[in-house]
Parts: sequence; structure tokens; C-alpha cells
Amino acid sequence: MPRYRLTIEYDGRPYNGFQAQAAQPSVQGAIEAAVKAFTGQQIRIAAAGRTDTGVHATAQVVQVDLERDWPAQTVMNALNAHLMREAVSVLDCAVAPEGWHARFSANERRYLYRILNRPAPPALDQGKVWHMKKAMDADAMHAAAQALVGLHDFTTFRDMACQSKSPVKTLDVARVSRVGDEVHLVFEARSFLHRQVRSMTGTLAEVGVGRWTAAEVRAALEARDRTACGPVAPADGLYLTGVGYEGE
Amino acid sequence: MPRYRLTIEYDGRPYNGFQAQAAQPSVQGAIEAAVKAFTGQQIRIAAAGRTDTGVHATAQVVQVDLERDWPAQTVMNALNAHLMREAVSVLDCAVAPEGWHARFSANERRYLYRILNRPAPPALDQGKVWHMKKAMDADAMHAAAQALVGLHDFTTFRDMACQSKSPVKTLDVARVSRVGDEVHLVFEARSFLHRQVRSMTGTLAEVGVGRWTAAEVRAALEARDRTACGPVAPADGLYLTGVGYEGE
Repeated sequence: MPRYRLTIEYDGRPYNGFQAQAAQPSVQGAIEAAVKAFTGQQIRIAAAGRTDTGVHATAQVVQVDLERDWPAQTVMNALNAHLMREAVSVLDCAVAPEGWHARFSANERRYLYRILNRPAPPALDQGKVWHMKKAMDADAMHAAAQALVGLHDFTTFRDMACQSKSPVKTLDVARVSRVGDEVHLVFEARSFLHRQVRSMTGTLAEVGVGRWTAAEVRAALEARDRTACGPVAPADGLYLTGVGYEGE
Repeated sequence: MPRYRLTIEYDGRPYNGFQAQAAQPSVQGAIEAAVKAFTGQQIRIAAAGRTDTGVHATAQVVQVDLERDWPAQTVMNALNAHLMREAVSVLDCAVAPEGWHARFSANERRYLYRILNRPAPPALDQGKVWHMKKAMDADAMHAAAQALVGLHDFTTFRDMACQSKSPVKTLDVARVSRVGDEVHLVFEARSFLHRQVRSMTGTLAEVGVGRWTAAEVRAALEARDRTACGPVAPADGLYLTGVGYEGE
């Protein structure tokens, strides 16, 4: 029974998150329905990251175990054909190496958060960016973000509903830069807590508009207290952009 | 009665083109309704380019004549508030100089055409790009496009329904380049014929996938015959990206 590794792009807006829930549209449900239409198999797939409602992906990674040994190209084309009416697309498909697991073998997740920073609301990118009218200082956000890099107790930036055993994580990269009308925040870590990226982004946005200082971001982290967090950024601007695996 | 110059962004998908038509949603209709909601005035606006159904704009220019002398900032904010449920956004607003006309004073229109060139269909950019599975040679497209630059009779690249008096136009710029997974075509001219950009793009795409040579593009132009044109590219990937005015 070969395991396939799929790289997936999706628009998060039509879905109640990645994970399948009864009677709710989900990215997982869309892919599992495509697998069933293609092979007749009713399977459960696993993914590197369980993105929330409205969160997008340019390169989510999922595993699909099929009974038959199809060429990877055939699997990709067949699933894309069955996903035609969905906002999900298979970018790449390969037979996974022995013992590989989409979630447990992953040792890095990469996220991008896009803030549209201009007076006018988005017309072309509705639901794809967070709109902030007030001019933001991306350099100040980048400087403040460096306090978050490294091994920390991220309780402040963790949703109350987070089910992770420990709030201690290592943030490898936090990079903030201006790209035209947008401010881009890039975060990389082995793993993230629930809502961690949106909590960090919303807090750093306060620095961007001059309401918080870098020292206040550091103090919020050190408080290890959810109520010390700034506002949580909306799902709209968040993209899972890549997953790293052991030995790659 | 001050005339305002507005720079407008829109997603073309929900609209039957820029121009207002009875009982059809249009970009013009959306803006005119916003003006009515803001000022009570029932006016007709004019635009630099009348884009077709499904064609997008990142910087269309329109003129709005108001009875009262509002600050430009107030006009922009009020119209954006009334456009909240539309896919139209006012990026900039300024009082126009005496004698300026959004359409007749324009001496350059700039268009971008985005082709998504990868095996997988678009999930995040559905309706925003033209999807071409087969690998395209952007350099060959660029070379072939140079035959179109300059003063020519563009009958081959003109829709049968085009109402322009003459098919003779000067194409100032035709530039094709690869940008990651996409092939971008940029065209600049004082004015374009109806469907000219999509006709040129579809023809150059044939060069990109190796079905046409540069010499065949030149021969098609010289034929001055609509039936010599390649396939017409869909509206999805087309963006009006800017308008130039005399003395700027």
C-alpha cells in the first residue's frame, strides 16, 4: 500500500479549516472525497499543519495511502480533476519514502502573514490579506519580533483552546518586511501553538502602528499570560507556505 | 462643480464589465450607486478604459463630477464606505485640473496579463490568472512580441465587434517575462482596440508552447485578417494596471 506525499494549495475561505468535521466543508473532506471518487477508497488523510477556518496554504503537505500502486503523476492529475469545483489544488505528488509521515516527520513549518497597509480596502485580495489603514513601521516590527526568536514559553501567544502538551517552543525565524503596499511577516519553527502566528502578528501590528514598543512585546512574552497578548490577527492574511522534513 | 480623479481597483469577476448596462452589475454602476448614496447625485462617470466582463484593474482612472466642493480625502473615504459590499475600492482621489478628462486626456494605457504556467490548476487565484499546463518559453514569446511593437494595422488582433474608427494603432511596449510559476505579458499603448490585448496574448501563448513561430506571429499581423489571429485569451488573467496623462 503505497503512501503518496502531496503538496497542496488552497483558498481557506470556503472551508471550516483543514480538519474534517461532521457536516462542515473542510480541506481534508474535499481531498478525501476526491480520493474516493478516484479510487473508491474511503480513507483518512494526515497533514503537516491543521490550519484554522479561513487560513490559506500555498504548500501544505498531506499523505494519502492508496491500495493500488498508481504512478504519482496519475494520482495528481486524477485528484485535480475531482477537485475542479473546490478551492484546493494538488501542486506536486510523489511516492513517500518508507516510514515517512506528513505530520510526524515534519521538522519545520513556515508561515507568511500578509497585511495590506494602505488607506483603501482590498478589492482584488478580499479575504486574502488583513487590511490596516494606518501606516506601519515594518522595521520597528522586525526589531520587536526578534524578542520572540529562540526557545520560550509562548503561553501569551497561545489560544486558550490549544491542546499542545507544552507551551515551550523554539521560534527559528521571525522576519518582517515591507513589500510595496504590504507588510509581510514570515515565521518558521519546528511547530507552532494554536493561533500562535496570528497572536504574534496582531501583537507586532501594535508595534507597527506605534501603540506598543519592542520592550512591551518582550514583557508580554515574559508574562506567560494569555491576557498580556495584543489583538489576534484575523485568519484572512495567513498562509502555510512550506513544510520541512528530516533529512531534506 | 469640481471634477475628481479617482484611481480604482476592482475584481472583474462579479461584474459584466466596466460599463453600466440595464439590470447587469457593472463597475460603473457600483461607483455611481456609491456616489448617489454619498451625495444624492445621480451622475454618469467616465473612465480611461472600458474593461470587459471579468477583466480586473489595479489602477483604472475615473472621473466623478460632484456638485459640492468636498475634500478629496472625504470623497475617497465616503465612496469606500459605500463600496464595502462591492469588489471595487478607491485607491486615490484628487481634484482634477481644469479641462482634464479621464478618457480623452489619457495618452497611455498599461495592461498586465498573468498566465499561471504549471501543471496544477489555481486554487488561490481562480479567476485571476489564465491556467496553461504546458511549459511555456517566455523568452520566445518576448522575441515574437517585438513584431507587434510600433505603428501597425491591428485588424488581426481586433474583435469583430470593435467600434474603433481605425484599426491602426501604435503599440509602445510588449514585454514578456517569467515570474516564478507565472508568465507575465505587459502591453503599453496610447489606446487599444477591443480585445486587442487578449488577442495578442492568446497568439503569443501559441509561441510559448511551441505551436507557432515568431515568423507566424508577424505573418498574422501582416495578414490584417481577424481569422489569422490565434485563440483569444480569457478575461481572467487581464489587469488594467495604469493610465498615463498628458503632461505627467
